[in-house]
Amino acid sequence: MQSFEQQREKFSSFLENYNFPDAPQSLYDGCRHILSIGGKRVRPVMCLMAHDIFSNTTNIDVLNAALAIELFHNFSLVHDDIMDNADIRRGEPTVHKKFSMPTAILAGDVLNVFAYELLNELNAKNSKEIFSLFNKTAIEVCEGQQLDMDFEQQEQVSIDEYLRMIQLKTSVLLASSLSIGAMIGNASEADKNYLYEFGKNVGIAFQLKDDYLDAFGDGDKTGKIVGGDILANKKTIFYCYCMQKADEESMQKIQELQQQSGQDKLANTLSLYEKLGARDYVYQLKDDYSKKAFAALENLSVPQEKLSELKNLARYLLQREH
Amino acid sequence: MQSFEQQREKFSSFLENYNFPDAPQSLYDGCRHILSIGGKRVRPVMCLMAHDIFSNTTNIDVLNAALAIELFHNFSLVHDDIMDNADIRRGEPTVHKKFSMPTAILAGDVLNVFAYELLNELNAKNSKEIFSLFNKTAIEVCEGQQLDMDFEQQEQVSIDEYLRMIQLKTSVLLASSLSIGAMIGNASEADKNYLYEFGKNVGIAFQLKDDYLDAFGDGDKTGKIVGGDILANKKTIFYCYCMQKADEESMQKIQELQQQSGQDKLANTLSLYEKLGARDYVYQLKDDYSKKAFAALENLSVPQEKLSELKNLARYLLQREH
Repeated sequence: MQSFEQQREKFSSFLENYNFPDAPQSLYDGCRHILSIGGKRVRPVMCLMAHDIFSNTTNIDVLNAALAIELFHNFSLVHDDIMDNADIRRGEPTVHKKFSMPTAILAGDVLNVFAYELLNELNAKNSKEIFSLFNKTAIEVCEGQQLDMDFEQQEQVSIDEYLRMIQLKTSVLLASSLSIGAMIGNASEADKNYLYEFGKNVGIAFQLKDDYLDAFGDGDKTGKIVGGDILANKKTIFYCYCMQKADEESMQKIQELQQQSGQDKLANTLSLYEKLGARDYVYQLKDDYSKKAFAALENLSVPQEKLSELKNLARYLLQREH
Repeated sequence: MQSFEQQREKFSSFLENYNFPDAPQSLYDGCRHILSIGGKRVRPVMCLMAHDIFSNTTNIDVLNAALAIELFHNFSLVHDDIMDNADIRRGEPTVHKKFSMPTAILAGDVLNVFAYELLNELNAKNSKEIFSLFNKTAIEVCEGQQLDMDFEQQEQVSIDEYLRMIQLKTSVLLASSLSIGAMIGNASEADKNYLYEFGKNVGIAFQLKDDYLDAFGDGDKTGKIVGGDILANKKTIFYCYCMQKADEESMQKIQELQQQSGQDKLANTLSLYEKLGARDYVYQLKDDYSKKAFAALENLSVPQEKLSELKNLARYLLQREH
């Protein structure tokens, strides 16, 4: 089994050889910019890893599919950054900041079309099925982003609603990256589904960990300002837990805290999270999803040693402190 | 051959039976809104008409393809309206006005994915080729919109550059609608290409006519304010012609007029267009493309009587005074 780094290098050199047209320059500079600022390439690497579990040779199909997934992911980042009014991504200006909002809309649009053209080049017999899963996932990612925005306008968001949103917005693309890799490797229907379950639960656990670190992480290790979500009144799993589980008085307290700002707001909110059991709840919930993820792998029809690199990747994603 | 109205009704009832998911409501209300405000459905009707030239029965493939094209077209309208900051389309608020900019971005994105899912349902043997043409066209439409925006920032736009832009932004989708219909009807490669040429030239002529009517049309008939493009300093074919053909003095005059506003600006610009021969040039150019379009039809390997409704549609589009 190839390591994460080996797979990432393989993917990176494939990506480097992929060229957008020269003109219109502003449009394709936007596409090149978002792809150039990197990221860990987790999704395409997952696609390659899942494929390699069932097939010994990396073929052009799986590289094309991995790239299609990465282009789709970058398209969604470009559009999300517009919607979230984000100026910076990975230390670089976002596409709409560096170019313009219209160019960012179009660069996202065209990245998505290029993803589809890569999928159209698949030779796999089950390419229609792969295509369907890709579309289903793309629709869900859009729905997840819409729910995330809707939640900002809602006072009440249940834990289930929140989990559903992060599943759509974040998890299903990880899950599909694995399933698509497996499908190109001619995995059985059952194995494909177990990998999907694995990816889905890793994704949810990852997002819960993200929420957890924002509230209770070590700023020195995460490199982020602790409490950013709280200060911005974001609907996180903590907020949803408290609004669902707290008594009338605590609920009112949370809403009062939302009106405040600064370090007092942060300290008081964190202490309320502790008092209401939100901290323990979220930590446990993340662990539950993490266990569900690894349990799904146990069911695969392949020798467990073939899964070592995938497990390493999941551990890296879920145990990270930063 | 079925008339435009018959084909449109067939398509409309197919569209009416197509349902978006219920939730998230805001997202799909955005999709339903743009589709509900109508339009002439020229592209899907062209797809159906082209198909019927080669095949006697309208099958599910061509209806799915026609709908995919209409969804794609509506996706591009929703995003274009954001970029153009347009409040009104067909007398109704645009999606970003009625809902929000983020919802409009996502509604456009998801409309495009649904278009691809419809294409994935094609049973035609040449579905991969159809898919490729669709992707090529989608990329060109994005490029055309980018060029249109780029031109707003440029002082000089040559006639050729302008024609290229309208070809990408408007014509290729008409051309592909015809080609895709023909491909599903198993037309020969040559016939498919002749229909593409027809559609491409109709599209360019249509856009030139649009520019012409904006400057020299009869406001009572067009229902639009004459001179809207001039007052907004839009780069039209007239502007490009003048900047390319005029002497130093006239060029300077045009640039001075751009700084002005109101009825004087309009009257003086129109009179300059006349003086420089731009009016005659554009009228002639539109006619040339129109003739090229009809000439392409002559080459088709089918009896000319099978083309009567398509010719009627093109005449309707090109001879309209409104």
